[in-house]
Amino acid sequence: MKRTFEVNPWTLTTHDLNPTDKRLQESITSLGNEYMGMRGMFEEQYSGDTHQGIYVGGVWFPDKTRVGWWKNGYPLYFGKAINALNFMKANIYVDGKQIDLAVTKPDDFEISLDMQKGTLKRTFSIYGVKFIVTRLISAATKELADLYYEISSTDGNAHSVKYDASIDANVVNEDSNYDEKFWQVLSNDTESDSSYVSTQTIPNDFGVPQFTVVARQGFVGGNKTNQTKTDDQVTDTFEIKVTTNKVSTFEKRVIVTTSRDYDSNEATIDASSKLLSQIASANYQDIYAAHIAEWGKRWEKADVQIEGDDAAQQGIRFNLFHLFSTYYGNDPRLNIGPKGFTGEKYGGATYWDTEAFAIPVYLGVADPKVTRSLLQYRFEQLDGAKHNAKQQDLAGALYPMVTFDGIESHNEWEITFEEIHRNSTIAYAIYNYTNITGDRDWIEGDGAQVLYNIARFWADRVHYSARKDKFMIHGVTGPNEYENNVNNNFYTNWMAKWVLQYSIDNYPTVNDDEKGKLGITPDELTHWQEIANKMYLPQADVEINGEIKHIFEQNDTFLDKELIPAADLDPKIRPINQHWSWDRILRSPYIKQSDTLHAMFYFPDAFTEEEKRNNFEFYEPLTVHESSLSPSVHSILAADLKMEDKAVEMYERAARLDLDNYNNDTADGLHITAMTGSWLSIVQGFAGMRVRDGKLHLAPFLPSKWTEYSFRLVFRGHVLEVHVNQKGTEIELISGDSLVIDLNGTDQKLD
Amino acid sequence: MKRTFEVNPWTLTTHDLNPTDKRLQESITSLGNEYMGMRGMFEEQYSGDTHQGIYVGGVWFPDKTRVGWWKNGYPLYFGKAINALNFMKANIYVDGKQIDLAVTKPDDFEISLDMQKGTLKRTFSIYGVKFIVTRLISAATKELADLYYEISSTDGNAHSVKYDASIDANVVNEDSNYDEKFWQVLSNDTESDSSYVSTQTIPNDFGVPQFTVVARQGFVGGNKTNQTKTDDQVTDTFEIKVTTNKVSTFEKRVIVTTSRDYDSNEATIDASSKLLSQIASANYQDIYAAHIAEWGKRWEKADVQIEGDDAAQQGIRFNLFHLFSTYYGNDPRLNIGPKGFTGEKYGGATYWDTEAFAIPVYLGVADPKVTRSLLQYRFEQLDGAKHNAKQQDLAGALYPMVTFDGIESHNEWEITFEEIHRNSTIAYAIYNYTNITGDRDWIEGDGAQVLYNIARFWADRVHYSARKDKFMIHGVTGPNEYENNVNNNFYTNWMAKWVLQYSIDNYPTVNDDEKGKLGITPDELTHWQEIANKMYLPQADVEINGEIKHIFEQNDTFLDKELIPAADLDPKIRPINQHWSWDRILRSPYIKQSDTLHAMFYFPDAFTEEEKRNNFEFYEPLTVHESSLSPSVHSILAADLKMEDKAVEMYERAARLDLDNYNNDTADGLHITAMTGSWLSIVQGFAGMRVRDGKLHLAPFLPSKWTEYSFRLVFRGHVLEVHVNQKGTEIELISGDSLVIDLNGTDQKLD
Repeated sequence: MKRTFEVNPWTLTTHDLNPTDKRLQESITSLGNEYMGMRGMFEEQYSGDTHQGIYVGGVWFPDKTRVGWWKNGYPLYFGKAINALNFMKANIYVDGKQIDLAVTKPDDFEISLDMQKGTLKRTFSIYGVKFIVTRLISAATKELADLYYEISSTDGNAHSVKYDASIDANVVNEDSNYDEKFWQVLSNDTESDSSYVSTQTIPNDFGVPQFTVVARQGFVGGNKTNQTKTDDQVTDTFEIKVTTNKVSTFEKRVIVTTSRDYDSNEATIDASSKLLSQIASANYQDIYAAHIAEWGKRWEKADVQIEGDDAAQQGIRFNLFHLFSTYYGNDPRLNIGPKGFTGEKYGGATYWDTEAFAIPVYLGVADPKVTRSLLQYRFEQLDGAKHNAKQQDLAGALYPMVTFDGIESHNEWEITFEEIHRNSTIAYAIYNYTNITGDRDWIEGDGAQVLYNIARFWADRVHYSARKDKFMIHGVTGPNEYENNVNNNFYTNWMAKWVLQYSIDNYPTVNDDEKGKLGITPDELTHWQEIANKMYLPQADVEINGEIKHIFEQNDTFLDKELIPAADLDPKIRPINQHWSWDRILRSPYIKQSDTLHAMFYFPDAFTEEEKRNNFEFYEPLTVHESSLSPSVHSILAADLKMEDKAVEMYERAARLDLDNYNNDTADGLHITAMTGSWLSIVQGFAGMRVRDGKLHLAPFLPSKWTEYSFRLVFRGHVLEVHVNQKGTEIELISGDSLVIDLNGTDQKLD
Repeated sequence: MKRTFEVNPWTLTTHDLNPTDKRLQESITSLGNEYMGMRGMFEEQYSGDTHQGIYVGGVWFPDKTRVGWWKNGYPLYFGKAINALNFMKANIYVDGKQIDLAVTKPDDFEISLDMQKGTLKRTFSIYGVKFIVTRLISAATKELADLYYEISSTDGNAHSVKYDASIDANVVNEDSNYDEKFWQVLSNDTESDSSYVSTQTIPNDFGVPQFTVVARQGFVGGNKTNQTKTDDQVTDTFEIKVTTNKVSTFEKRVIVTTSRDYDSNEATIDASSKLLSQIASANYQDIYAAHIAEWGKRWEKADVQIEGDDAAQQGIRFNLFHLFSTYYGNDPRLNIGPKGFTGEKYGGATYWDTEAFAIPVYLGVADPKVTRSLLQYRFEQLDGAKHNAKQQDLAGALYPMVTFDGIESHNEWEITFEEIHRNSTIAYAIYNYTNITGDRDWIEGDGAQVLYNIARFWADRVHYSARKDKFMIHGVTGPNEYENNVNNNFYTNWMAKWVLQYSIDNYPTVNDDEKGKLGITPDELTHWQEIANKMYLPQADVEINGEIKHIFEQNDTFLDKELIPAADLDPKIRPINQHWSWDRILRSPYIKQSDTLHAMFYFPDAFTEEEKRNNFEFYEPLTVHESSLSPSVHSILAADLKMEDKAVEMYERAARLDLDNYNNDTADGLHITAMTGSWLSIVQGFAGMRVRDGKLHLAPFLPSKWTEYSFRLVFRGHVLEVHVNQKGTEIELISGDSLVIDLNGTDQKLD
């Protein structure tokens, strides 16, 4: 754990400029607006270790797979969000001396992310001049990024600041497999009032579209002294006079347009020009005001307030801030990358995390159409999912581990081939959407194609074991990625059984049109039922605190391992994934994230209290929570089991995972999809939110450190505000007709 | 199966010039002399698909590992035998028309490998001229390769042949991971009587030495008309007049020297010059005679004769020919690459195949010092093996899956990390050498360091399962690579138990010096004994042909699979590794090569006849023999069980695996280490050769198709010749003192 920013309810501020924490700082101070985003790197020259990263939603590249030993079925490429052209690049000189904060320390330094306003402000003084730089990626005009400088003298002398403002297409992905550049420049030019670079992804052999991205820069303030252009860069040079009696300002505006929205390179370039012209009459204050107004609306709907624990308060806001920066449901072609726009790890594409962790949040804080759009995204990619199943010689559809277009684009075999439980989470999201919103339209229409092709996959993927007279699933990786190629992973088997049963149960209501397309025979349904009835679910008796208790076994032979609690490990070798060989990790009993417990997180009502308690007591002590997704699941289950201290401990870890760099990997980028976990911990965990038979249930408790928490909740056309404090729970109906909910087991009518 | 060469006891001949079989033809007609070797590619321009491959023993390159997801413990590089500079390159013109047999078909064509003489002869007529080209890599002078042309007119006209003879350093490995060239040219020059190129491997970051290879060409016959040199090539051009009344001859001699034998680039170049001068006075007939004399000596010791089955006869000679071409024990720094000099697949380095399959043959056909040299090779690499264990957080030594210097250089994790049973085979080879030769000197000296560090590895790699009160080995890949990351692989566990017991039993005789270096405590030995006593060996009752029989289970839960015999598979999807997804293969019950049965192959006397029969009857029908190493093991076990037809069927497959391209992969190169299998099938299988308590046992049978077979055998200072025919077995003592052996259970004295 490492806390680098000060605790404050609405801001993330530090005065520390420690080179070893630079990447961590950059990740945490990232900005985004769903359309694009960037890490919090300095715009000017910084010769220390830094990761300059700017990414544009939906713009990706297929980085070809090469392995020493090809195995039939390998995906041909790893899809990667591309580090786009660097439109922030600058060289800044004060009286001829170039600023490089890695070389010359400033007299003072502050960097501060304002989560309420969505702005990043940096203040530093050097060479007798003070700079205040405010950066925003507009929530009002998606294509706009803005840098605003306030510059003043600190030593009573006048100064001259020279500012080289560049757009640079000479950019590579740090995670490029073969040091290839993914970009080629189509054109660039310096014009009288702006300059631009247009780049295109290099051709590929995989049928993946080539993307064009144009960045254009314009300026307010300063005196333009030069314009230059090289093969892959444009630069506008300004002189800014710093007098002793007033603050000089200088503003750089960047418009980014892409071939995702325009037909041709020319149209993309023209659009950037038009968009820049459209805001020419606006001053910085207008741009700023429009931006913070949008952020205000978001917080009005979604803010969670915690009284009595500023660190917890800061954590939940930090999570919601970055979640909304990554995705706010504006573009149905987009999804939620696991690191958003804050880094390159994991390729930046769509994972099952969306359905597992993000959809449950959007169902609570946004219009249902945001979720339906995320579900429709999977329908649009059904052909890709069918292709993936076929690649493994299997029927139906296998939703990918990682994708931009439906085709699997992750090429680590124990994940790609074996971590197939992801497929069930797509079905779970359909259930979750249907259950919470009450909208059956989707599951009976397009959604049926998704659901029944997933069911078909499972019916083909199981095999019959004559020895045990059971259907089994061999050769999988469960949610616990610290084991792989295991047999009969409880979670995978249970979920496959659930998918088949849910599919059978819903079949009668499916639209006839969809039934016709699916062509499911009565024999097929009968076979599905046989599999569901005879699915093997490993279980055993174990000793927990001196008592024999019955648990589900994580997979065949898991209990043959040497079962030493994680608490007994030397703290110096934590996290184990940074200290142990992979071989040792695989053989150990340590669980990266919830596995058996994950089914209980998805379906708390499908298990008895005893089942939940026994399994939690057995597995949690073996869990090292080295997945960002783990603490929140455990927090929710602990809350369900009234283990309130454990629930709060796990919440704190989930909420401040990146802020406190728990897993020592935040320098690579933030765990965006895991950021949903803190909201889920509060709402599903502490407040006990469930939807049963169309009725909303709440059963809140108040963590002992807190004096109050409150949140808003969207439910079937209503917006509720829930306040929980020492006096109890108050629920206010903010909008919508009157409604009966269940509070702590008692009906309560809200008017 | 595809048979492209005619059946003949001593030659491999074809008149077929089918472009689709070109690579297959090249593999089969490879030549080598341990020091270097080459595929049977044409020297002149061939514009069709071809794999030009020339390799020099012990010259290798560390091809860096890149994976999308690094795992702690990964080897940093994959070691690869390097495709060396092409010293065979030629352009040949007849009256100005360039020969390219891919474009213009010759009037006649024959290529013929003479296994008795070790020469490759090619005959073809084109443009009115007939060429007979004899190629050899000298068994007498290791650095010498020779090409001898006999050229005559076929149309009654005189012709002019122009011959551009080149040495070309612009060569890449087909299996280079990143299309890197591994070579840089140090110098090249054309001199009055010869020309040369000197190349060095490019620098690397892994501490692996850079190798220099020099090739120098000289000529006899023809008129030199030109010499040219480019950055990475030298060319000598000759005109050869073809008259109507006699055969013109032209000879190219190549000397290859390397930094493995000389200190500096200059010394390596000088040596090539001196060696070429040394043979200047010899004519081609002298060179040829010296070469075939060496091959004569080899065959005199090792030839196996089979009467009544020419295909079987051709097969065994083909195997011994390529085995001896790859390794004949001349250089103790070398080992036996799995494809020898015939291809690039598998990297060309040292595998456990040497100890499992090659040592048992060399123990029978060569002086014991050849085997001791192979064992000493492992001692020299002990530090590397300790490093490998440490990389996996384990004690002792882990001999690598693939290596040139002891450090693991294979980077496919399920092999590198999990196929650790290889470690026990090093110990088995120590046992085998000690048991067969009776020489205990090595095991009590240097060998103790090898053996006891392997034992230490196993003692650390097991874990204790409280549930079963047994020691277990989780997370391994057995010899059957069609499963991986399994728990309690019977073979792995049984062998680890054997290693520990063998180590304990031999400890009292180890030299005190070695004991001091090892520092084994009494407690450590006690713990080893506890592990050996409590090692978990999975076993179960199964139904075989309607009867319940007891078998060892290949690994935990293997019997839960869907157990459909391989014979029921559609022949169109065989071999399955070329038709099924890797995922499907892993989940299937199909066994690539002997696994449980492998322990019985190593230790036939450690299992009862019933154990061997039950396991053979259960596992063989599930075995697809898609490893080149599989058929011979099954042949030997079938012979042991008196299943003579099965033994012969498997022998035929082993002996002609490459000749008949059973696994459709011989185009990549020959399965050199598998070639030992046919000898083992005859000697250990059909002839039942065992050594028990220092006494040689034989119990031969005669395959029904054969009228006789005979072989020679080296045993403890004696050479025996064994004849088996319908009259029985005759054993002749060729050299050594009188000796008592056991023939069919009865002592027999040989004088």
